[in-house]
Amino acid sequence: MKASLLAIGDEIVSGLTTDTNSGFLAEQLRAVGVEPVAGFSAPDDEEAIERAFERALEEADVAISTGGLGPTADDLTTPVVARLAGRPLRLDEPSLTAIEERFRSRGLPMPENNRKQALLPEGSTVVPNPLGTAPGFICPVGRGGAIRHVVCLPGVPREMKRMAVETVIPWLEGLNPGRRFLSRTFSTFGLTESRLDELLAGVAGPTEARVAFRAAFPHIQARFTVSGPLDDPLEARLDTLEARVRERLGTHLYAVGDEGLEETVGRLLRERGLTLGVAESCTGGLIGDRLTDVPGSSEYFLMGVVTYSNDAKQKLLGVRAATLLEHGAVSTQTAEEMAEGIRGLSGADLGLSTTGIAGPDGGTPGKPVGTVCVGLSWEGGTWSRRYDLGERSRDWVKGMTAQMALDRLRRWLLGEADS
Amino acid sequence: MKASLLAIGDEIVSGLTTDTNSGFLAEQLRAVGVEPVAGFSAPDDEEAIERAFERALEEADVAISTGGLGPTADDLTTPVVARLAGRPLRLDEPSLTAIEERFRSRGLPMPENNRKQALLPEGSTVVPNPLGTAPGFICPVGRGGAIRHVVCLPGVPREMKRMAVETVIPWLEGLNPGRRFLSRTFSTFGLTESRLDELLAGVAGPTEARVAFRAAFPHIQARFTVSGPLDDPLEARLDTLEARVRERLGTHLYAVGDEGLEETVGRLLRERGLTLGVAESCTGGLIGDRLTDVPGSSEYFLMGVVTYSNDAKQKLLGVRAATLLEHGAVSTQTAEEMAEGIRGLSGADLGLSTTGIAGPDGGTPGKPVGTVCVGLSWEGGTWSRRYDLGERSRDWVKGMTAQMALDRLRRWLLGEADS
Repeated sequence: MKASLLAIGDEIVSGLTTDTNSGFLAEQLRAVGVEPVAGFSAPDDEEAIERAFERALEEADVAISTGGLGPTADDLTTPVVARLAGRPLRLDEPSLTAIEERFRSRGLPMPENNRKQALLPEGSTVVPNPLGTAPGFICPVGRGGAIRHVVCLPGVPREMKRMAVETVIPWLEGLNPGRRFLSRTFSTFGLTESRLDELLAGVAGPTEARVAFRAAFPHIQARFTVSGPLDDPLEARLDTLEARVRERLGTHLYAVGDEGLEETVGRLLRERGLTLGVAESCTGGLIGDRLTDVPGSSEYFLMGVVTYSNDAKQKLLGVRAATLLEHGAVSTQTAEEMAEGIRGLSGADLGLSTTGIAGPDGGTPGKPVGTVCVGLSWEGGTWSRRYDLGERSRDWVKGMTAQMALDRLRRWLLGEADS
Repeated sequence: MKASLLAIGDEIVSGLTTDTNSGFLAEQLRAVGVEPVAGFSAPDDEEAIERAFERALEEADVAISTGGLGPTADDLTTPVVARLAGRPLRLDEPSLTAIEERFRSRGLPMPENNRKQALLPEGSTVVPNPLGTAPGFICPVGRGGAIRHVVCLPGVPREMKRMAVETVIPWLEGLNPGRRFLSRTFSTFGLTESRLDELLAGVAGPTEARVAFRAAFPHIQARFTVSGPLDDPLEARLDTLEARVRERLGTHLYAVGDEGLEETVGRLLRERGLTLGVAESCTGGLIGDRLTDVPGSSEYFLMGVVTYSNDAKQKLLGVRAATLLEHGAVSTQTAEEMAEGIRGLSGADLGLSTTGIAGPDGGTPGKPVGTVCVGLSWEGGTWSRRYDLGERSRDWVKGMTAQMALDRLRRWLLGEADS
């Protein structure tokens, strides 16, 4: 079975909002054997929305839209779908009651414009929205003698996700004619996309798996997808592929799956019973933010400090004035003293540090923007290195430095020598 | 003039990668009076890509694609466009030289598969890529007696952006028949989308401006777009609208434009000559990360600490054991002592703090997941408040807490009483 995805709204087409809904839905669909085959976006304009739905139904059995179900005048999805399906709009009493109840429970009067959210095409299946006012719906549409389906969900990601997972995906599983798709993602660090492609060339035969590459900073990933009838041992086929991929990628492969380095590092710290303190200068808190995105990180992440100023580096971390004077704040020497300092201050087993010039100002001929140092301290040793990342955006330098620091920590935890 | 945007690649359609390129291009196009009217995505499949281009050209004068120009076998954009335009592929010598030079300057041999990136449809205009190997191109395509254009750019955002800004946008400006669009975005905090819509109802007449809302956490924004011939005073028309919008939104409007609260707060701190220290528990470094995304933030952001553990709160910030024992780590009392502590430790004028339960574990009946406290300390006073955000995702709780803390700081800097 095939599906198309539509993102509806001026804010999408004009670039004000990035559509993350289609990607989420695509992943969910693939997990139940529905293949996403095309994506469309349309502005808040009835004719444009109608053309997008027509094209989406040309490509696929199911067209799933997000957006345009809100209470405002520019929300047009429902009437367009009703017309497309040749079904009049009817007030769905349970949906209206749910909307009214939602406002009542918060002690608010229901604005009149929310009432229209309960108008749905006749004969639709309601997709309840436990987190917001706009219900979704599944509407059958006749096309060339066959019945296809339009599924409409709100654009607010949190609401859409819950509705998709609780109602739409189970409904699709019921329709599924019995072919499964299964994917496995391999996350790497330290390779270019082109190099990854070369390393993996021929690892899977053309009919064995489909390979897609993703080079979206800071991730360089390869994903293998296999498919077959319901009783095909897809897991085992992916296991065989994984063994070959592992052999080719070595420690450049940091995780199987979509996890970030902060999860890999967290898992390794937990497995080894080690704790961590982090002293950040140029990354400004990003490493701490990433580490604490992982539930349970308080078990191993004891303390973080953001010491932008020399004063803070000295006072809080005990970086020596002589070091700052002689080598500068952006130096391997300072990175080492920061790492040692945070280890002492936090009482953690490991201290990780970053210092660098994120730009756009602050560069000098000897230390241009993009010069960064990473330090690591442990009982019995200290490591540091300087990297010249080149003049890139501030965001990029912060992000890449955080990624390099986490990768260095990962390699240390794996017992790898400095490489 | 109208444009369609295409995102090409399995990784896009299958949801592995979010397409941020189309949004960037849409904003750029609008700035030079080209209206983005539709978006398409297609997998790495020749027929699907061709259908997407055909539809994109039905909607618009120019179809701009990103992706599918790489060196790998699944990169198919160029041959599809050549066929669509009826133009054979020719080796573009300057492009090949540039690719070879790129590898040579890094001391690397050019992999053979990069050679195909210099094959372009005959008669195309090359779009040079100063940051990567894949050149882009602009290819004329006859459609119904008229000449339309296909523009192909690589999918790597950094390369694509530079190529768009340096070559494609100036080329489009040359084609432009003389109508301009201009937008202004209003960024708010503390309103729902529905409430924002109500507050702004009728602020602009239907022919005066087009209004789009964006509710993408943590942003709630409204954008007004006006258009007219080249000599139409669009700026002045937006100024008039802005005055009315300001009156209606009051201090819920934190910025005109797309800036984040960290920029607004940074500007206010700088204007007032005040410095800041931040003590984060549940936000884990996110506030520091956001503050340091702003160039020059080292002038006012003196120090950050991430004190997850009680031990760190006591040792580093001087939170009293009795406070932790009596009120708990997640309490307004602890938030106040954290804010006072970081102010003392950093020597800053202001101390901002967060403590809370981001979940999914750690909740209790009295303090469920989503219970967070924000504290603010200044010379002569301390403020704190508890918020019950409800059981949401860890990311959401972190993000919303950071946003609330920054907004509280903003309001304090504006001299607003506790509200």
